[in-house]
Amino acid sequence: MGGDFAPVNEVAGAIQSLRQTSNAFEVILVGREKEIRDQLARHQTEGLALSVVDADEVITMEDSPTAALKQKKHSSLAVGMSLHKEGKADAFASAGNTGAVLSASTLILGRIKGVSRPTIGAFMPSEAGVCLLVDAGTNVDCRARHLFEFAIMGSMYAKAVFRYENPKVGLLNVGEEKLKGTEVVQEAYKLLETSSLNFIGNVEGRDILKGKVQVVVCDGFVGNIVLKFGESVPGFLKSRLKQYAAGNLLRTAMVAIARTPLKRSLRDMDYEEFGGVPVLGVNGVSIIGHGKSTPKAIKNMILRAAEVAKSQLSRHIEDAMSAALPGGTAPVEATITSEHGNQRL
Amino acid sequence: MGGDFAPVNEVAGAIQSLRQTSNAFEVILVGREKEIRDQLARHQTEGLALSVVDADEVITMEDSPTAALKQKKHSSLAVGMSLHKEGKADAFASAGNTGAVLSASTLILGRIKGVSRPTIGAFMPSEAGVCLLVDAGTNVDCRARHLFEFAIMGSMYAKAVFRYENPKVGLLNVGEEKLKGTEVVQEAYKLLETSSLNFIGNVEGRDILKGKVQVVVCDGFVGNIVLKFGESVPGFLKSRLKQYAAGNLLRTAMVAIARTPLKRSLRDMDYEEFGGVPVLGVNGVSIIGHGKSTPKAIKNMILRAAEVAKSQLSRHIEDAMSAALPGGTAPVEATITSEHGNQRL
Repeated sequence: MGGDFAPVNEVAGAIQSLRQTSNAFEVILVGREKEIRDQLARHQTEGLALSVVDADEVITMEDSPTAALKQKKHSSLAVGMSLHKEGKADAFASAGNTGAVLSASTLILGRIKGVSRPTIGAFMPSEAGVCLLVDAGTNVDCRARHLFEFAIMGSMYAKAVFRYENPKVGLLNVGEEKLKGTEVVQEAYKLLETSSLNFIGNVEGRDILKGKVQVVVCDGFVGNIVLKFGESVPGFLKSRLKQYAAGNLLRTAMVAIARTPLKRSLRDMDYEEFGGVPVLGVNGVSIIGHGKSTPKAIKNMILRAAEVAKSQLSRHIEDAMSAALPGGTAPVEATITSEHGNQRL
Repeated sequence: MGGDFAPVNEVAGAIQSLRQTSNAFEVILVGREKEIRDQLARHQTEGLALSVVDADEVITMEDSPTAALKQKKHSSLAVGMSLHKEGKADAFASAGNTGAVLSASTLILGRIKGVSRPTIGAFMPSEAGVCLLVDAGTNVDCRARHLFEFAIMGSMYAKAVFRYENPKVGLLNVGEEKLKGTEVVQEAYKLLETSSLNFIGNVEGRDILKGKVQVVVCDGFVGNIVLKFGESVPGFLKSRLKQYAAGNLLRTAMVAIARTPLKRSLRDMDYEEFGGVPVLGVNGVSIIGHGKSTPKAIKNMILRAAEVAKSQLSRHIEDAMSAALPGGTAPVEATITSEHGNQRL
C-alpha cells in the first residue's frame, strides 16, 4: 500500500506476473482489503494464484521509517514482512517508503550473522551485461569492514541470482593503483585482497559501463550519486536531441529515426526493467521498488523476488560471512553448483 | 613536453590557436628547442606570434610529481611555469603529468591567500549549459572548510570565465534535505548557507546533467568518479548501438543516421571541446590538458588559458576568499561588472 499508485499498479503488476509465468508462484496482496478487492474486480483474475491479507494501516513516503514501524503495527509493510518472517511467504516486495522497508527488513527479519549493516544493491547496465552496485545509498558513512561485507554480499548475489560463475569484484576508486583514494578505501583494498573473492582491484568511474566487473563496491554516498547520475543520462540525451532537431525538418526526421535504436540501447538504464533492488544481509528476501512503479515494474519486482527466493541467497550470504569471520581477513570460499543453489558455499 | 604526443600535437595546436584568433595572443613553446623547431618546420608559421624557450628535461607521466619537480629543474614544466611566475607569460598550459602540473602550480605560483588547498575543476555538460564540477579529483579526503572554499573558487570561475551573472551553487549529496549525507557534507551545508554565494542547497546525481546549478561542489573522490562515469557514456552508447545493429541492415541504417545527431548532442562530454581544466586557488593561470590531447584539444586549452588570464580570476578568488575570512562564515560578496572583470569583488 505504500507505493505512489497503490493499490492500482500493485494489483495490475501482480496479475501480470502470474499470467506471464502461468502461476509459477502465489501472490499474497497485503493491504486494505476492500481497496484491493475493488481493484481485483477490474481485472480477469479467474484461475490466478492470488490471495488477499488485510492490513488497515499505510506507511507513507513522508513517514519517518522507524517511528512509523513502531506506531503503525498494522501497516501493509509490517503485516507483509511478518508473513515472510513466519514462513507464510517466501519473499516480500514493496514499492513503498525505502527507509521503512529497509528498517522493517532489518528489524523483523533480522540481520544475517556476521553482517554489520544490511545494504541495498542496485543494477547498472554495462557493455558486458548487468552489474551490481553496492551500496546504492543506504550507508553513506562506511568503514573498511563495511565495504568488505558489501563485496561479499554483492558477490553472492551476482553468483546466486545473476548466475555469474565467479563474479569479478571491483572497488570503486579514483585510480587503479592500490594506494589511491581515501584511507577507508585503501584499508578495504587490503581486506579484499586477502579474501578469496574474485577481487580484481580498484575500478574507476569509467569502468562501470564498460563492464569491467560484475560487482562494484562503494559506500552509499558515492553509489547513490553515480546511480542517479546514470539514471539521468537518457533524459539528458532526449533533451539534447530535441535541441538539435529544433526547427529543422531533416534533423527532426533523423532524430525520429534515432529514437528506437536509442530506446533499445538505453532500456536497462530504466528502473522498470529491473523492477526493484534487493536488501542484502537480512534473513529473508526483501525487494524494494520505485515509489512510482508502473504495473510493468511491479511485475518485474515480483519476478525478481521469486528468483531471489529460489536462489536461497540469504543462506549463501550467511555461509560466506561465517567463512570470512573472524577479523575479516579469513578467506571466503564460495561455490554454487546446482540450479537451486543448495550446495554448501 | 609532458603530453603523450609532445611536441607534435602541442605545436600543431598552438599554430591553430593563433590562426583562429589572428594572433590575439602570443604563444611561447617551452621544451627541447630542436624537437620543437623540427615540428614548426613542418607547418606554415610565417606571421604567427610564436616563440620558443629551451628546456631540455621532460617530466614523464610515470614520474612522481614532487620528486620530479625537485630533480628536473630544467623540465619544460618548471621552466614554463617560472616564465609565468616571473610575469614573462600571462598563463601556463600543459598536457603533461596532472599531479606534477598541480604541484608546480602550487609550489611555483603559490597558493592564493586564504585557500587551504588548490583544486581542479572540471566541465560538465548540462541541459542548461556548461557547469563546473569542483573538486574533480585532486583532494579525495576533504573537510567542510575545503568544500566551502571549492564553492567560492568554483563560483568565481563560473562568474569570471563562464560569465554566469550569479552562478547557482549546489552541494552534491544523496538527497535534498539539509540533514542528508555525511557529517562533512552536513557541516559544509551550514557554511554555505550563511555565505553570500548563490547556494541553492543540496543537489543529487540526477541534477548535474539537468543543469540545476552552474557549480557542483563535492570532494575529489566523488567528483573524479562522476566525471569519469560521464566520460564513459558516449562509448557505452556506441557499443550498445553496435550490438543493436549487428547483422541487421535496416537497423544498421538507422544507427548510421543516428550517428550525427548523437555526436552533436554528446559533443561536450568530450574533453577535446574544453581542452583543459583550470587549477583553482593558485596565484596565476594554470590549465591542465589531457595527456592524449589532440591538436584541437591543445588549441582549445590555449584559448581557455587566454580567456582565464583575461578574466583576472586569481584576483577575484583572492578578494572573495578574504571576504570569507576569518572562520569561513562571513558573507562572501562578489560582483563582476566590467568586461575585463577588473572591478572590486
